[in-house]
Amino acid sequence: MDPELADAALRTDVYELTMMQGFWASGRSSDAASYELFFRRTPEHGGYAVAAGIDDVVTMLTSMSFSGEHIEYLRSIRLFREDFLSYLSKLRFQGDVRAVPEGTVVFPNQPILEVTGSLLEAQWVETLLLNCVNFQTLIATKASRMVEAAKPSTVVEFGLRRAQGPNGGLWASKASYLAGCVGTSNVEAGYRFGIPVFGTHAHSWIMSFPTEREAFDAYAKTFPDQSTFLIDTYDTLGQGLSNAIAVSKELARKGHQTRGIRLDSGDLAALSKACRAELDRAGLSDVKIVASSDIDEYSITEFKRQSAPIDIYGVGTRLATAYQEPALGGVYKMTALYQGTDWEPKMKISSTPGKSTLPGRKQIWRARREGQFVGDVLALAQENPPFDVLEEERNGTEFEPLLKDTIAKGERVEEPTAIEAVRDRVADQVASLPKEHRRLADPTPYRVELSHRLKAYRDELFEKLA
Amino acid sequence: MDPELADAALRTDVYELTMMQGFWASGRSSDAASYELFFRRTPEHGGYAVAAGIDDVVTMLTSMSFSGEHIEYLRSIRLFREDFLSYLSKLRFQGDVRAVPEGTVVFPNQPILEVTGSLLEAQWVETLLLNCVNFQTLIATKASRMVEAAKPSTVVEFGLRRAQGPNGGLWASKASYLAGCVGTSNVEAGYRFGIPVFGTHAHSWIMSFPTEREAFDAYAKTFPDQSTFLIDTYDTLGQGLSNAIAVSKELARKGHQTRGIRLDSGDLAALSKACRAELDRAGLSDVKIVASSDIDEYSITEFKRQSAPIDIYGVGTRLATAYQEPALGGVYKMTALYQGTDWEPKMKISSTPGKSTLPGRKQIWRARREGQFVGDVLALAQENPPFDVLEEERNGTEFEPLLKDTIAKGERVEEPTAIEAVRDRVADQVASLPKEHRRLADPTPYRVELSHRLKAYRDELFEKLA
Repeated sequence: MDPELADAALRTDVYELTMMQGFWASGRSSDAASYELFFRRTPEHGGYAVAAGIDDVVTMLTSMSFSGEHIEYLRSIRLFREDFLSYLSKLRFQGDVRAVPEGTVVFPNQPILEVTGSLLEAQWVETLLLNCVNFQTLIATKASRMVEAAKPSTVVEFGLRRAQGPNGGLWASKASYLAGCVGTSNVEAGYRFGIPVFGTHAHSWIMSFPTEREAFDAYAKTFPDQSTFLIDTYDTLGQGLSNAIAVSKELARKGHQTRGIRLDSGDLAALSKACRAELDRAGLSDVKIVASSDIDEYSITEFKRQSAPIDIYGVGTRLATAYQEPALGGVYKMTALYQGTDWEPKMKISSTPGKSTLPGRKQIWRARREGQFVGDVLALAQENPPFDVLEEERNGTEFEPLLKDTIAKGERVEEPTAIEAVRDRVADQVASLPKEHRRLADPTPYRVELSHRLKAYRDELFEKLA
Repeated sequence: MDPELADAALRTDVYELTMMQGFWASGRSSDAASYELFFRRTPEHGGYAVAAGIDDVVTMLTSMSFSGEHIEYLRSIRLFREDFLSYLSKLRFQGDVRAVPEGTVVFPNQPILEVTGSLLEAQWVETLLLNCVNFQTLIATKASRMVEAAKPSTVVEFGLRRAQGPNGGLWASKASYLAGCVGTSNVEAGYRFGIPVFGTHAHSWIMSFPTEREAFDAYAKTFPDQSTFLIDTYDTLGQGLSNAIAVSKELARKGHQTRGIRLDSGDLAALSKACRAELDRAGLSDVKIVASSDIDEYSITEFKRQSAPIDIYGVGTRLATAYQEPALGGVYKMTALYQGTDWEPKMKISSTPGKSTLPGRKQIWRARREGQFVGDVLALAQENPPFDVLEEERNGTEFEPLLKDTIAKGERVEEPTAIEAVRDRVADQVASLPKEHRRLADPTPYRVELSHRLKAYRDELFEKLA
């Protein structure tokens, strides 16, 4: 198991544990509840999000337990009763989880993941579940935006050095790869997840040789078929480019092939055009142009608009931290409560617009026509199509339920999906989303309708509570 | 050892390893170099930063090595020669590190940490070192800004659920605590680092009981001396406050004491004033007011300006992700190179203003007068005061060198400082920084001068290179 996923029992806010003791002491250990995880808006006003972190949540929930040392620590903070600590020491997550498959395209106010279990276990897992899904979904979404902007050029993730800690870097690499990046600079991510790794040399390499040419020669000698020359240390279009061309020609004479040149400063659009022209003139049209330096989906869009011949974008800080909006505001809300005999729907009514929640256990039904997503219907869990809320429903539309049984009574239902298969799923999902929902600027909102029954259910409960 | 710090050999960008093979294959394994880590500007145009992550770097550097599985993985990616892999399998960091003590207040362009060792080992550690120091310094700095803004009120860190992964949350808790927060909601941070943990209940607790009053009663029964009642689930100034007052009075009659009430929505300034007045009228002036909900140093400043009687600020996302500027741009640059017989100074000359570097190994000398910092002098490593660059130098000013030997020939020089002692150091450091450098809006830049010799050294090298 990944070290990040092991030993997760204490990965929680204190109040989850104090509430658990409260429920337990109030004789409510056998009361059950359903909670759902959703977010209220997409990052950076984008048209969609890519759900990620689900598989890691399943791994944690099906393996976590309090160790003797955990219990000892909890005893030391003088909040918990001995009998409750003894209960905790035997606690395992025994509930059910339904979730969208890792890599599914999702929208605001949709339940990405639902936990049904005892009040106690559902509180226990809240924080770790939000932590995991919020961050991985945030980065997968950011990466997808960049990958879409760059097409047909590709994006490599370079963010470890400015990521939020080692795991911030590692999970950013993973989420970026499954969302369509072609690889990462992060060796640990390659080792752990089998993600392709990329990189050649830094300015320090060039500076540690008497001349740039000697630095390129030494590198080419060590990696004759895997060199990408960084050409902006001294004078990009002067010695940088001409040294790279000279070394590449020499490599070619010996039957080798330079991979590319890298630009890391200056006007990347203008420089890439000048470099492309020179490289082509020198018969080096196979040599790729890699660009890096504070790149994000917005600058990629500008470079495209200017027809900059950049083949590969190396994206660091802006991707690995989701710089412009570095947190996804996913929340975890109770939708139903079981006390004794009956499930009772729960909703939060808020005077803040958009902060009220939808009651009851649900299903998301996604409608596809001719391969393309045409809209979703949010329905009660026991409903089935047709719903008669999307006009497209009549015309050969196929409905797919998105929430699948993922954990049943504490046991994993299916093995986690291999990362390459998740990556294929994301590619299919994003390609199935019509383009007007994918653009960065003012995307058309994707239709998510409530079923008639869910609406009635909500209105009825609202009347009762308000 | 903390799991985050173990097994760090692959926590690096691929290009560090390819450069290492390049140096090695070019017969340069015995060439040495000095590198320094510094940042070019403070986050959010603040007046200072709090250096953190240094002690963790020392732990990683003095313990990291490639395992058999690491080597097998590196073999599988077909970039490395067998003889180089065999070299790696025996590699340990054997270099020297000088660094400022954990928790030191630092400024732009100052070397926070210096690595001197073989070219190969210095490249190996670059990425993990930047990852660790960039993130922890970022959060310690953000936390210090919030703690300063809140004084004499206190700040508790609540960010785990939206932090960038589990380690993002954990290190954010640690960095926040050492920078002056009084605690965290994160149980794992309490367990690992002994940080005080805080928290009571969520809206879900209230909603799981038929009435708010029953929810408060049940909580008070379980935690008669440790209750903070969340009063905004239904109607803050209506039933919320009056239920909290009623339960608190009952607790008081039984000899117990309510800790506080918590506000999590609405106009926190207006609500806190109304609550304070009612609580005082009810004889509950010891009951504290806790406020949370997207709080940061800017809103804290506003609440203070409006004299909001908030005793404790619970700060989540904005602190744990350093929301407004979620990455510190620390870099790692070569300052000297040793080939064969002599140390040769190195500097990067850039046409971008502020991107040129300062050559040579250095020392930061901090001048104090009457306990207050009056300015720093950046000097060559072998220099000593007086420097004759700060006018205060004559008048009983004391100079302290900030960079201390931290690792010598691969061995830790001193045991890491206990977290409470680091916290005391930060408090002393920040209190010693005159107020005009601490304010959020347009702080006066702190004086950092170059010594005459460093200036001459730089100018001379510049002439030679330009």
